[in-house]
This record gives sequence, C-alpha cells and structure tokens, in this order.
Amino acid sequence: MTALTLAEVQQLRDETPGCLSGIIHFNHAGASLPSQSTLDAIIDQLQREARDGPMEAGEQGAILAENARSAAAQLLNAPTSSIAFASSGSTAWSMAFQALGPWQPGDRILVGRHEWGGNLASMQTAVQAGAQVEVIPCDETGAVSLAGLESMIDKKVRLIDLNWLPANSGLINPAQAIGQLAKRHAIPYFIDAGQALGQLPVDVQALGCDVLKGSGRKHLRGPRGTALLYVRPGFLKHLNPAQRDVFSAPWSPDGFDLRNDARRFETSEVSFALLAGLGNALQEINRLGVERVRQRIQLLSRIVRDELHQIDGITLHELGIAEHQSGLIAFNLAGVDAFELKRRLGLKRINIGANGVPYTPLDMQARGLESIARISVSYFNTIEEIEHLVETLQLLAKEP
Amino acid sequence: MTALTLAEVQQLRDETPGCLSGIIHFNHAGASLPSQSTLDAIIDQLQREARDGPMEAGEQGAILAENARSAAAQLLNAPTSSIAFASSGSTAWSMAFQALGPWQPGDRILVGRHEWGGNLASMQTAVQAGAQVEVIPCDETGAVSLAGLESMIDKKVRLIDLNWLPANSGLINPAQAIGQLAKRHAIPYFIDAGQALGQLPVDVQALGCDVLKGSGRKHLRGPRGTALLYVRPGFLKHLNPAQRDVFSAPWSPDGFDLRNDARRFETSEVSFALLAGLGNALQEINRLGVERVRQRIQLLSRIVRDELHQIDGITLHELGIAEHQSGLIAFNLAGVDAFELKRRLGLKRINIGANGVPYTPLDMQARGLESIARISVSYFNTIEEIEHLVETLQLLAKEP
Repeated sequence: MTALTLAEVQQLRDETPGCLSGIIHFNHAGASLPSQSTLDAIIDQLQREARDGPMEAGEQGAILAENARSAAAQLLNAPTSSIAFASSGSTAWSMAFQALGPWQPGDRILVGRHEWGGNLASMQTAVQAGAQVEVIPCDETGAVSLAGLESMIDKKVRLIDLNWLPANSGLINPAQAIGQLAKRHAIPYFIDAGQALGQLPVDVQALGCDVLKGSGRKHLRGPRGTALLYVRPGFLKHLNPAQRDVFSAPWSPDGFDLRNDARRFETSEVSFALLAGLGNALQEINRLGVERVRQRIQLLSRIVRDELHQIDGITLHELGIAEHQSGLIAFNLAGVDAFELKRRLGLKRINIGANGVPYTPLDMQARGLESIARISVSYFNTIEEIEHLVETLQLLAKEP
Repeated sequence: MTALTLAEVQQLRDETPGCLSGIIHFNHAGASLPSQSTLDAIIDQLQREARDGPMEAGEQGAILAENARSAAAQLLNAPTSSIAFASSGSTAWSMAFQALGPWQPGDRILVGRHEWGGNLASMQTAVQAGAQVEVIPCDETGAVSLAGLESMIDKKVRLIDLNWLPANSGLINPAQAIGQLAKRHAIPYFIDAGQALGQLPVDVQALGCDVLKGSGRKHLRGPRGTALLYVRPGFLKHLNPAQRDVFSAPWSPDGFDLRNDARRFETSEVSFALLAGLGNALQEINRLGVERVRQRIQLLSRIVRDELHQIDGITLHELGIAEHQSGLIAFNLAGVDAFELKRRLGLKRINIGANGVPYTPLDMQARGLESIARISVSYFNTIEEIEHLVETLQLLAKEP
C-alpha cells in the first residue's frame, strides 16, 4: 500500500466541484464535498424518475441501492444483509436503540462522556421507563477508560454505547478494546461511527459491535439525507422495531412478519436518487482504499495541529494520544466566539465548523467549554490550503 | 373558480419532462411526474451544496424548507408550526402512532377495512403490548360506516385511524363526518391522506383530525423520499416521540426539552434538496388551486370508468358512491394477472399500478381479491391519453 500521491490528490480535486469553486473546505466533519460523479449519480436518477415515472424508474433505483449496499458491506467487512439505509444517522441509531426495548426500571445504559447529544436525547424515553444512563469514567488522556468501564459492569447493564470519534476533539476512543470487553460480558454494544466512517478503516468483525451507525454526508462524501446502519445478523433477534411498514414487516396470511435482515429498519419509500449518490461515494472510497485515506488525514491534521500550536491566542481542546488522533481539531481563538470565528472565516471563503454544548453536552460541561471551533480535514485537502488557513487565522488572531 | 382550460393543461404538460418523453402516465397514485421546475429546484440545491459545502448551503436550504412548510400549511389550512417533514409517509405516521403510546392491555384502535398494510404493521407493537386493532364495519357502498363506528365507541377506544382514500379503489371515505364523531367522543383521530393530498382539498380544520400524513411523491408531484405530517398544536401534549435528536429535543441546562411544535418529529439531518423540490411542487398546486385539480380529476376518471365498463373482460372493483370517487380506478382483466397486465402496458409505454393483498390486506381479503390493476389519473392527463389507454386495453382484452 502506497501513500496517496500529489497527482492523485490533484485528480480527486479536479473531479470535485467544491474544490473548483474557490472555497477552502475544512468542514468535512460537518459534511464533506461530493465528487462530480456522485452528484451526477443523484441527478441521473432524478432525471430518470422524471422521464420514465418515479416508481417505474424504481427498478433501476433498486439496483443502484443494492450497489450501495454491497459497497457499504465491503467497506465495513460485513454481509450485505446486515446493512440498512436511513435518512439520518440519528434516526438510524434511535430506531435501533428503541428496538432494544422495552426498557425496564433499573436497566443501565453505559455511555462515554463524549456521547452525542442526539443519542442522549433518544435515551430519555428509556429514562422515562426507569432506565439509568451512566457515564463511563475517562482515562488520563480523556478517552473512555477500559478499567473504568469494567468496574461498572453488572447484570443490569443492558447496553454500552460508544461515540467512537467525538465531534468536538480529535479523540479516537478504543472501540475495539471496548468491543472485546462487551463480548466477554455478553453486553450489547452500539458504536456511533458518524465521524469514523470514511476517515478510518471500520471493520465491524474486529470491532465486535452489534450495531453501528454512520453518516453519508460526512467523510464518505455522500449526499445529505443519507445514513447507514449495520446490525450484526445474530443480534437481530433482540431488536423489535416500533416503526414498521409494508416493506419491513409485510403482511402474510400468517401475520406481519419482520424481515430477517437489517432492512427491518428500512421503509418501502426511499429516495433512490440519494442512495445512488451514496453508492457512488462508497465505491469511490473503496477504490481509493480507506487505509490510504486515513494516512493522509493523519499527515495533514498533524500539520494543522503543529501550526495552530504556534499561533498566539489559539488554544487547542484536544483529547486522546497525540500520535493517534482524528482529522477533527477543536480549538478556540481568545476573544472570539467560536461561531463568530466560523462566520469570519466563511466571509473569507474558508469553511470550518463550530459546536456548542448540546452536541456533546457531557464532555463540553466536564471540560468547561461553551463552544469550540473545529477544523476537520479530508484526504483531498492540500498543504497549500492549510497554509492559507493558518495565515488567515494568524491575521484574525492579531485583529483587535 | 373556472375549470382548468386545455391551454393550461397543455402548458403544464410542456413543463413536465415525463409528458415530453413519450410515456403515458396513469400511475399518479404510485408516484406522479414532477415538473421541470421541481426537478430544477432539487438539482439547484444539490449543486449549491457541492459548490459551497453541504452544511454551508444549509442556510439557503433551510429557507427553502421553510417555504415548503408555509406552502404545506397553506394547502392544509394549518399553522406552519403544525407541519413536519419526513422521508416517508409510513415513517411519519408510525412515529406519530408510537408517540401516542405506551399502549396498554385493553386499548382499542379502530380502523377502516381499507387500512394501509404499513399502518397495520406498525400497530403490531401496540398489539404486543395488549392493544386490540378492530375493524369498523362498512356501509352498503363499502365505505366506513358512521353508525357502525358510533356503536363501537367506549372508554377503551384510544385511536380512530382512517385511510381516507384507499389505494385499491376509488373510495373516498367520510373523513369529515368521522372527525365530528371523534371530536364528540374526544377520541384521537388520525387520517392517512396519502392518496388525498394533491387530489382533493384537504382542510385539517374542517376534517377535525389530530394527525394527518401525506406523501410528497404522489398527487403532489414532489420528489421521492418526502412526506409531510400535520399535528394539531393542541394535540402535541399527547405525543411523546421515541426518536429524538439534537434538533427535536435539544439539550439545555434543564434537560432535553422536546420542541413545542410538530417538528419534534423531525431530525437535524435532512435533504434540503428534496425539500426544495417538495416546496416547489406545493407552491405549484397552491397556485393552480386544488379545487380545480379535483374537478378535472373527477371529469377524467369518470371517463375512464365509463370506458372500462364497456370493455369485455374488464371488471371494476369499485367502492363508494359513483358520483363521489377519486382518481384511482381498480380493475382486473379476465385471464391476466394484474402485475402482468401492468407489465404488458409498460412495454407499450403506458404506466399503471398494481397492488397485491399486503397493501390493504383487510379489504382485499374481505372482497376476495388477490391483486388489482390500478389506473390513477392526474389533472394533467388528457382525453387523448385515455383514448390510447382504452384502445390498448381493448386490444389486450382480445389477445388469447
């Protein structure tokens, strides 16, 4: 395996409308830039639907969706029957979580301090039923502590849920080690891989997870309004989805039988156009090789971190081990609100992200942070873009 | 109010790619043909996202989504705060249904015989909790019987759910009269308006419903993967959604507070592109006037029915009063399976629909039907298209 060459990066950029439009994009963790061919795949299906009839074009749409499923299965090292698509990652995760119910008084749900606010919100119906959401201690680097987790395990623990790569730092939580621990104690294990998918190799067999969700629009460079859900085939029997329809639980003379694959979480109606785009994006990253993607993101984000460290007034809000961090870089510039900094950079055509407390409330509160600015890099960013970003931040840091 | 003129119809057709592509479309109840400007609205937003960054283009996306919400509110005679968008009608309905729980042993759910199979599938979790799904008797026309419904009412009835326009006949159920009855007895009342929206005037105030769902892709001519949900503002307090995220129930120092409008059923991640298309389609029908749409569909579908009656071998499977039927026409051709008939017409570039038992299982079984072919007309179909359809059916009826 060889590193991505500059020529390859240039070609990827030439095939990406957002790289040709004069913006500098460092908000891949919010949503990345699709390639022209991903955009074309969506538009082709939309035009086919308009021309031939939307349901009539569904035959081709279904083929494209199955291509997407195969590509997702390949990326995750999973069987195709374990993959479902959804219109948002929150929806996918929440459906799986609710399907694990009914929740009983005393049930314990263990989460990292970095848990996504949306998942915590969904857990509130379990809390209403008497379940408890408990926070696993962090180790000295701010990652989920394995020893801390192990010490919490008892018969009442019904779920361990991990936000693998939190949205508000470069932390990469020890997902695989937690999976081994969960398996040893036979506890269901969900991974929120929203920020991992498309950044890191994600092997659900190695991870040992029962459920994993990812987002289409982020590092995978798929369209907005797409997400995917992995459900381990052997785990399906524990999942009783509340939302059902003619596709997921069709009528038969024997009753309404839930499908025997992950698609029990899908609906009969979908946008095949968006799935066609997602499929194209998945095929692109499979062709490129996600390990090569990971290496380049690591290279570029290390440079960003080194540069930011040298700017007076900038404080990085990092967790985890320095040599093992993601492409998400959280920081603040003294005297400038994170959202205001994002706005100012936007005016200079540099896209970054900014997060408040509600997205990762437990971690933000534990660290006393009200908001963070966030640079997130992708493999098709360049050193030149980083230089431009750094120069602009240096100038902003000197403004009164 | 004047009828749609032939010139208006011709203009609508000139602005619709599917009318210019050589197909004859009579599958509007499956999904109708979007206008070019609806297609353009979707593609514009997709391109904006690819060019400026998907999240960065979300500012304009949110404006377009709010335009869609205003247009939906206008169409339904509802406040904008009562409208939520979803990616499928089944999802929208199912979320609202589950949010009415928890369901208790003995709870009664009353449905028409025409209930959608997807809704019945979703009710299975309530059934697992001990609730009963009971079928309201039909009157002599096959519509939901008001007297039959009234005789079933007691304190245990927790929901009346009506499939207003079933997918497998021209029946228009007495939605408004049922609404008055439900209100008199203070029973929650849901309407599945999947086939009504875009065909008939839908006034939620007059209907007296608490929840109503509709589909984007059908008679509204919006994109696939869109749906809308109306929730009466005063009814929100009875709805406790299980699926939540950072948008519908954001964290605050006081906890995770559910939004106080219908958008408690939405997620933070959506396809603004699809909503831009839906908004354009909603604005189109508002400009055209849905009462004019209804009149023309009634005119055209009466002609189709009269013509089909005269073809030897064709049996219409109609319910309801002849003068008061929808644009959906269910039938069978002797000796030809409905799906095979659909396929044969498709080869001649005529699109129709076909439904099996699972979509409306109670009604199909009650009427002893295994499948029906379905012609569904829209206001931009023409007499010439009907003549061509009828001639083709006459030929197919004569084939050995």
